[in-house]
Amino acid sequence: MSAHDPAAPALTTDALREPATAPRLNETVRTQLSHRTIRTFTEEPLDADTLETLLQVAHRSPTSAFQQQVTIIRAVNPDVREQIFDACGYPNGREIHGELFVFVLDLHRNAVIRERAGVNLEPLERTNLFLEGAQDTMIAAQNVAVAAQSLGLGVRYLGAVLGDPQLMIDALNLPERTFPLVGMLVGHPAEDPQFKPRLPRAITQGVDTYPHIEDHDEELAAFDREVEQYYDLRDTNRRVDAFTTQIASRLGVAKYANSPVRDVLTAQKLALR
Amino acid sequence: MSAHDPAAPALTTDALREPATAPRLNETVRTQLSHRTIRTFTEEPLDADTLETLLQVAHRSPTSAFQQQVTIIRAVNPDVREQIFDACGYPNGREIHGELFVFVLDLHRNAVIRERAGVNLEPLERTNLFLEGAQDTMIAAQNVAVAAQSLGLGVRYLGAVLGDPQLMIDALNLPERTFPLVGMLVGHPAEDPQFKPRLPRAITQGVDTYPHIEDHDEELAAFDREVEQYYDLRDTNRRVDAFTTQIASRLGVAKYANSPVRDVLTAQKLALR
Repeated sequence: MSAHDPAAPALTTDALREPATAPRLNETVRTQLSHRTIRTFTEEPLDADTLETLLQVAHRSPTSAFQQQVTIIRAVNPDVREQIFDACGYPNGREIHGELFVFVLDLHRNAVIRERAGVNLEPLERTNLFLEGAQDTMIAAQNVAVAAQSLGLGVRYLGAVLGDPQLMIDALNLPERTFPLVGMLVGHPAEDPQFKPRLPRAITQGVDTYPHIEDHDEELAAFDREVEQYYDLRDTNRRVDAFTTQIASRLGVAKYANSPVRDVLTAQKLALR
Repeated sequence: MSAHDPAAPALTTDALREPATAPRLNETVRTQLSHRTIRTFTEEPLDADTLETLLQVAHRSPTSAFQQQVTIIRAVNPDVREQIFDACGYPNGREIHGELFVFVLDLHRNAVIRERAGVNLEPLERTNLFLEGAQDTMIAAQNVAVAAQSLGLGVRYLGAVLGDPQLMIDALNLPERTFPLVGMLVGHPAEDPQFKPRLPRAITQGVDTYPHIEDHDEELAAFDREVEQYYDLRDTNRRVDAFTTQIASRLGVAKYANSPVRDVLTAQKLALR
């Protein structure tokens, strides 16, 4: 049996092999409940109709206060792609398959419009407008993700672009007042991972008031045990750590302790006050 | 003819009445291309199966680095709902129908886990981790929006919760290291608005490099004319302003100039550096 065999019985449970069900399943909900991150794709590119469909879905996404503060850049040139993967800290970028999108939080466009109108740019430097741009950006990204998955494709969010945002800015010639918030690979899956567990809903969903994790010790312990059963394709040599162990150990590493994100935002004139 | 008649011929174009089409239409893509913000809902509540489905979709949403930094709070209590609508600046909150969700960016939960493990909380105060939380939060929100729309419901994003985040924090008893990033109303539509135009894709979507708006003056002017044809249900007495006029005039008002978002984030110990 291959170490990559996702059905390896000693390491799986039924819950990790079957998507969740919901009382009102339709094609869309089924797609959403079937979400798994796909990390490797075949060499087969997206066909033109599929690419066009994803870009149209992005284009029609909801936008905060009609401000339309997101720009989407497809990275096609091998050099540009490699720079993006470098920013993510991924080696061998030229061997990574899949259509590559970068979702750029964009206040520059509206700055140009305001400059032409002779009005001040100060509102664009405030944190509230930055967060509205972040809303637009992530709404478009998740819209594309759901559309791609509904068409049978796999999706990998590249949150790791935050690892070196200045390199992203240089690679894509991003002007002031823009920020590369998230990347995404979309392609034909070359792997079949398990469904990854989620914290119990008693911990993550509340009614009228904040649900404190301290009130759910038993559920959290059970979740830790469930995560330890999860079979991570990225490291097939060992079981994964419990959730609480991951949170306690991973966030302290250098990547997080020395993040340049705040300085880059300031240089980009975003979220200044 | 009623001023609210969405088919009023003098004010509409075919493009504003018909959803966009895409080469690969399925139920999901059709739902996404049919997005319109619904601002008023009937009194009919969501049935229990529908609510459960939306919460399951939220629960299974993608999450950055498995950190699961989002908490969803349903506001059911009329007093709590009214406080949320107050934060948005909406009068007569008790008359607003629809299921009300608040999507809370949540680094508190992982702070508790790290405190219990005896490791430092400093990484949670960095802007990169805040943005990863914003990713989780908006991904869950848009996943719920698409699911709701696929089930025939209407969705209204409440970006306006950013207008008074401290009131939101008080209303929902949110602890340090959390932030109410966006709200959402979901319900049975009581209106049938037009499809709202979007900036041309030549302006908002690029390949390998940033697409500068200065290179697309003609498309921008055509878009301004298209927006002027849009029939806004919120103000039926006049046509809406051109896009560039809106961007030049609206962002400068007091709501934006005096936003408390940065100070509240600092008080919440988020995005400190």
